Amino acid sequence: MRENRVRSIWRGGGVVLNGWLHVPSSFSAEVMAHAGWDSLTIDLQHGPPDMGSVIPMLQAISTTDVVPFARANWNDPGTIMKLLDAGCYGVICPMIEGREDAEAFVGACRYPPDGYRSYGPFRANLYGGPDYAGGANDAVVTMAMIETKEALEDLDGILDVPGLDAVFVGPSDLGQALGHGPGMDREEPEMVEAIGRIVGSARKKGLAAGIFTGSTEYAGRMIDEGFNFVNVSSDARLMADGAAAAASVLRDRRPS
Amino acid sequence: MRENRVRSIWRGGGVVLNGWLHVPSSFSAEVMAHAGWDSLTIDLQHGPPDMGSVIPMLQAISTTDVVPFARANWNDPGTIMKLLDAGCYGVICPMIEGREDAEAFVGACRYPPDGYRSYGPFRANLYGGPDYAGGANDAVVTMAMIETKEALEDLDGILDVPGLDAVFVGPSDLGQALGHGPGMDREEPEMVEAIGRIVGSARKKGLAAGIFTGSTEYAGRMIDEGFNFVNVSSDARLMADGAAAAASVLRDRRPS
Amino acid sequence: MRENRVRSIWRGGGVVLNGWLHVPSSFSAEVMAHAGWDSLTIDLQHGPPDMGSVIPMLQAISTTDVVPFARANWNDPGTIMKLLDAGCYGVICPMIEGREDAEAFVGACRYPPDGYRSYGPFRANLYGGPDYAGGANDAVVTMAMIETKEALEDLDGILDVPGLDAVFVGPSDLGQALGHGPGMDREEPEMVEAIGRIVGSARKKGLAAGIFTGSTEYAGRMIDEGFNFVNVSSDARLMADGAAAAASVLRDRRPS
Amino acid sequence: MRENRVRSIWRGGGVVLNGWLHVPSSFSAEVMAHAGWDSLTIDLQHGPPDMGSVIPMLQAISTTDVVPFARANWNDPGTIMKLLDAGCYGVICPMIEGREDAEAFVGACRYPPDGYRSYGPFRANLYGGPDYAGGANDAVVTMAMIETKEALEDLDGILDVPGLDAVFVGPSDLGQALGHGPGMDREEPEMVEAIGRIVGSARKKGLAAGIFTGSTEYAGRMIDEGFNFVNVSSDARLMADGAAAAASVLRDRRPS
Amino acid sequence: MRENRVRSIWRGGGVVLNGWLHVPSSFSAEVMAHAGWDSLTIDLQHGPPDMGSVIPMLQAISTTDVVPFARANWNDPGTIMKLLDAGCYGVICPMIEGREDAEAFVGACRYPPDGYRSYGPFRANLYGGPDYAGGANDAVVTMAMIETKEALEDLDGILDVPGLDAVFVGPSDLGQALGHGPGMDREEPEMVEAIGRIVGSARKKGLAAGIFTGSTEYAGRMIDEGFNFVNVSSDARLMADGAAAAASVLRDRRPS
Amino acid sequence: MRENRVRSIWRGGGVVLNGWLHVPSSFSAEVMAHAGWDSLTIDLQHGPPDMGSVIPMLQAISTTDVVPFARANWNDPGTIMKLLDAGCYGVICPMIEGREDAEAFVGACRYPPDGYRSYGPFRANLYGGPDYAGGANDAVVTMAMIETKEALEDLDGILDVPGLDAVFVGPSDLGQALGHGPGMDREEPEMVEAIGRIVGSARKKGLAAGIFTGSTEYAGRMIDEGFNFVNVSSDARLMADGAAAAASVLRDRRPS
Repeated sequence: MRENRVRSIWRGGGVVLNGWLHVPSSFSAEVMAHAGWDSLTIDLQHGPPDMGSVIPMLQAISTTDVVPFARANWNDPGTIMKLLDAGCYGVICPMIEGREDAEAFVGACRYPPDGYRSYGPFRANLYGGPDYAGGANDAVVTMAMIETKEALEDLDGILDVPGLDAVFVGPSDLGQALGHGPGMDREEPEMVEAIGRIVGSARKKGLAAGIFTGSTEYAGRMIDEGFNFVNVSSDARLMADGAAAAASVLRDRRPS
Repeated sequence: MRENRVRSIWRGGGVVLNGWLHVPSSFSAEVMAHAGWDSLTIDLQHGPPDMGSVIPMLQAISTTDVVPFARANWNDPGTIMKLLDAGCYGVICPMIEGREDAEAFVGACRYPPDGYRSYGPFRANLYGGPDYAGGANDAVVTMAMIETKEALEDLDGILDVPGLDAVFVGPSDLGQALGHGPGMDREEPEMVEAIGRIVGSARKKGLAAGIFTGSTEYAGRMIDEGFNFVNVSSDARLMADGAAAAASVLRDRRPS
Repeated sequence: MRENRVRSIWRGGGVVLNGWLHVPSSFSAEVMAHAGWDSLTIDLQHGPPDMGSVIPMLQAISTTDVVPFARANWNDPGTIMKLLDAGCYGVICPMIEGREDAEAFVGACRYPPDGYRSYGPFRANLYGGPDYAGGANDAVVTMAMIETKEALEDLDGILDVPGLDAVFVGPSDLGQALGHGPGMDREEPEMVEAIGRIVGSARKKGLAAGIFTGSTEYAGRMIDEGFNFVNVSSDARLMADGAAAAASVLRDRRPS
Repeated sequence: MRENRVRSIWRGGGVVLNGWLHVPSSFSAEVMAHAGWDSLTIDLQHGPPDMGSVIPMLQAISTTDVVPFARANWNDPGTIMKLLDAGCYGVICPMIEGREDAEAFVGACRYPPDGYRSYGPFRANLYGGPDYAGGANDAVVTMAMIETKEALEDLDGILDVPGLDAVFVGPSDLGQALGHGPGMDREEPEMVEAIGRIVGSARKKGLAAGIFTGSTEYAGRMIDEGFNFVNVSSDARLMADGAAAAASVLRDRRPS
Repeated sequence: MRENRVRSIWRGGGVVLNGWLHVPSSFSAEVMAHAGWDSLTIDLQHGPPDMGSVIPMLQAISTTDVVPFARANWNDPGTIMKLLDAGCYGVICPMIEGREDAEAFVGACRYPPDGYRSYGPFRANLYGGPDYAGGANDAVVTMAMIETKEALEDLDGILDVPGLDAVFVGPSDLGQALGHGPGMDREEPEMVEAIGRIVGSARKKGLAAGIFTGSTEYAGRMIDEGFNFVNVSSDARLMADGAAAAASVLRDRRPS
Repeated sequence: MRENRVRSIWRGGGVVLNGWLHVPSSFSAEVMAHAGWDSLTIDLQHGPPDMGSVIPMLQAISTTDVVPFARANWNDPGTIMKLLDAGCYGVICPMIEGREDAEAFVGACRYPPDGYRSYGPFRANLYGGPDYAGGANDAVVTMAMIETKEALEDLDGILDVPGLDAVFVGPSDLGQALGHGPGMDREEPEMVEAIGRIVGSARKKGLAAGIFTGSTEYAGRMIDEGFNFVNVSSDARLMADGAAAAASVLRDRRPS
């Protein structure tokens, strides 16, 4: 079975650089797959892609050796299983608020007896290889978002769920949960503390830890904090930033 | 009828900043429409969009006052007329090699008696307003690409075609035509001379002049040369550049 | 942030005229957006549109100042939040059977601390403006369908849920619930009484009240009953009715 | 092979009622297919549908016995042949300006030795039956649009092309050609005369004659003039008219 | 209302041959609809199709008299109701683990008072006919998948749910549940016994019984076991098998 | 630049096994890419795919090392160049009737000075590599269909066009041209002679020769005749054949 390079990087002590896909196009996904990321995450929760866009986007990513992830729209087993069947090698699940949520999520990602994933890897067999069924439970990465008060309170309960591989920090929802409002790259002491506690606890228990950032500067600091899966910006944001910068340089330019 | 702001900017002596759309998605088109461009060009020739992507992309652009252009795939009247019916306010036509090509192109963009455009503005009526039919011949911008030896030789013949509003320089094809190979932002003396001749002749005859550039620096110089329609990069290129820069900063970063 | 004109109309004592979208096409959505409605509702429950059709349809509506609503397929937070992220300014939620359902629905539409909506308004930021996050809780309209016996029994419980803005009557399901079968424009005394009780209770408590009707005649009477959000027919039904009328006039016509 | 009911109606001296499809959706196409038309024409010239929308729309029509036609975007053999391969039983070709155009058009619709249609009826075989190849030349209806001065001048040349089955009048382009501007349901004497000449010449030579109208009243008069293929309005126009009428009745209605 | 031929075949003591659709294309669906199956099942659980592909695929099937089924992604009432509204005449529901699951599933498929299906058969009315509402509860086939230990334990509870028409055996999940791993065409004694018990119990109680098989040989034996709804392979698998066989015959062939 | 394995196979004296894609789905394209073919041809002429389906299908193929080809709808430079820009490594062009047609076709596939291909390999750069521009003229395979009387008469003229790499025999059109009707796997002496003459002339002049066949048996014989690019059946046909065989085995089967 095709290896999951995200696991290999983690095993080697490295940091996974993840790109984020909001544009529901297989063309832009392929462009992003050539840009230098280790993994790409298709965002079904807070981005335009829905299940109908996933397969072409996964195929575009699979023209390279970048590892395909998806963020599920919700902790919904039908959706999560279908993302895996389509060939995702990792799933980020939003709004995991405690052990029970985490168990439901992880169970949906593992074939029996480890979980209750239903069998039918219609494209995962093509992507992963004919021996996918046997290796999938070991290969697929499960990543629980920690972004609510409830999750902070039951953090250990979540981290102890067998089969959970990683946590992922959503700074906007976490900010809202702690009364600081949405936003990337948080500096509020309470936020810094919470983020530190999440990455610390996760790594101590042998799990990986990921975070969504808005800049390479902050991402670098998060790597220093122990995060080994960092996301910087998104396809649409990078495009918008580049376009706005170019347009603004030339705005109101007149022939000299 | 809704005015064509590209014409207004030109009339005011200004320069139109154009963004280029290769990603065949209405979401990324809307993102680009909020980034500060005056106009956006959907590229049907050397980009993924085809006629099936055009209407949603035009609708996305029309949520703002950015002016919608398209580059046709070829000097083909059926395609050009349909782009206009869909609500494009300007068409860039590739491979105009002489007066005859230019006449065919311009004629496809003008209702009789100025041209031979067939009537049926199925969406242009919604975008431009119910009086579209009466104003379209004055509003729609026709832009001929000058990118071959033949075009350079018959430059005056092209520029003299009644109803032609502008020329557009494609530096890669022009480079190939002159034996210098493809590429943006040309510095070869022969290329510089040819580009200068195109913009000079066009502006002298009262036409506008556009060019595709790869950087704001070169675009700025082209404005100084007299170009009043400059394109910088593309949606996909801006995304790729931003992503590659971010990934490269963090590449091989290890927890300190 | 862009105002929600539906709220403005209500504040001014007016009635919102709503059009209904079943055809999963951004072109027909734009046609409907030019037809004179105040708001348009994309029906994900009993119509062809699914999440993949929503963004282009919303973009088409956003080329005008018509207010975009959607009817969710189910009281499912993942779907409801994504509709809002995509730029819907109102959500109609089917099958609200009691206070608990209503609380779950409203909570999904409000950022903390008012609710539990997750943050990530990927297109709502473009449509509503960069200050969307701060204003969304006040702008977004929540509308609960009252269409079951259980809902009639817990009507006050539903109406008292903080943050619920309006109710919406589905006459077919209500008819089925009360043993009268499906159908629009109900005249059965029990139905008339139930509908009157819903609109009366809602308006008395300061909520708005909406209803799906099949004719302007009935819609007019419903306005007299106190409804201030009336829907007449649908895109597909209006098309079918017009076509059937035209074809029937000419059917079996022979040259005279 | 499945019969072409349009031909059967004509043979029986009847008039074909045609519906016009602009909405590029298979759902609205199926709605129209149940509305009472004899045939439906997918408009690839002045409507949103392009080749990518054609097959699902044809399938929707094929759930009924309504006869599927398409208007080609241009007199382009590659497009016309593909429309036929997809299962169209009739093609309306725009901008036929003389005998040569008509011969090119008809030839693209007929297998050798009658024409030069290339073989590969990938869906026509499913729709028409396994004996499609043998019967197609007799079944497929060819309809040339007469809408320019040139066409009026070479009308007999066009009508005499072997294999041409019908003409179709486009009143807007014809109006533009004769200096009267675009519009449906023409009453200008010169237009009335030209239209009369077209239908008269065509029917006298045994061809059918079709026309696009904007109302049943005018369509009825055209039937009296000899037209035996009449189109009234379009899917999008019928929807827009119905919606505008409903909204206008209720506009500014306040509770009484 | 259009009859459900699956029920007619069952009433006549016959066996329904079902084809399986994984390719999310209306073209391949129409090809399969001409291949000799009695019914076709669109697989939303372990196949690429999602709700956005369902309507065109159903329309393609509806060009023939093959009966359209779908396998839902999950026991989710919103999805199941929408599949029925779109015109499915049968729904296969995965992961029914006991009476309660079965009741929820069947209730979603039946209008009150038999269930809680919400009214709005937007396309079922076109497919089934204008009297669809009255006949749907009798026509629609409900089929519960038996594929877990829990389901085997509560088999009678499931089979006794009023309105359940059939069971469907998923051999891979059942194999996983019983510790034998995934796979078609099971021969393990424990599997054979379990499958035999399912079909025996179902048929004894008057329900139909279906199974997914990988070969006509095994399918034939299953018919002998009492199954009266057999599925053989899938569109994608049949294509892959045929292609691999052809390529392998010619592989390494050199001109002789 | 990524090599063109079709050329490598030919250089090694081998035969290219080509699969044919009619289903406009990236999923089925990926299934076919795993079935053992050396190359896959997306058929835009006599199949459903149009330009909008090409990119996702090419991406699906590019997840493997199968070489992507397309058959253009017509000898139209705009279309052919766009297919190449999208990453096709070979183009089959229909209806080449003589030297002039062949020159136009080959010229559209070659950058200056070898031809007149316009520069803009938007996806070919991703697929082929950043040095695509320099290597494309050598890598891209041009294949002219020989399927008309005119082509047979000017066969040498066609074969002598510099840059033409191969011919491809379409047995149905050739059959029609010679008065024998459409069909695969021809045995008529006149057909056998013509096919033999095409392959003989082409191979003698150092060109490759391809043919569309309906069976491995005939394909094998064609290899013996000298063809070194053989196509057997198509995705849709293989699926239909497999399905019809399975359904027919079980048809009318009753429990024994």
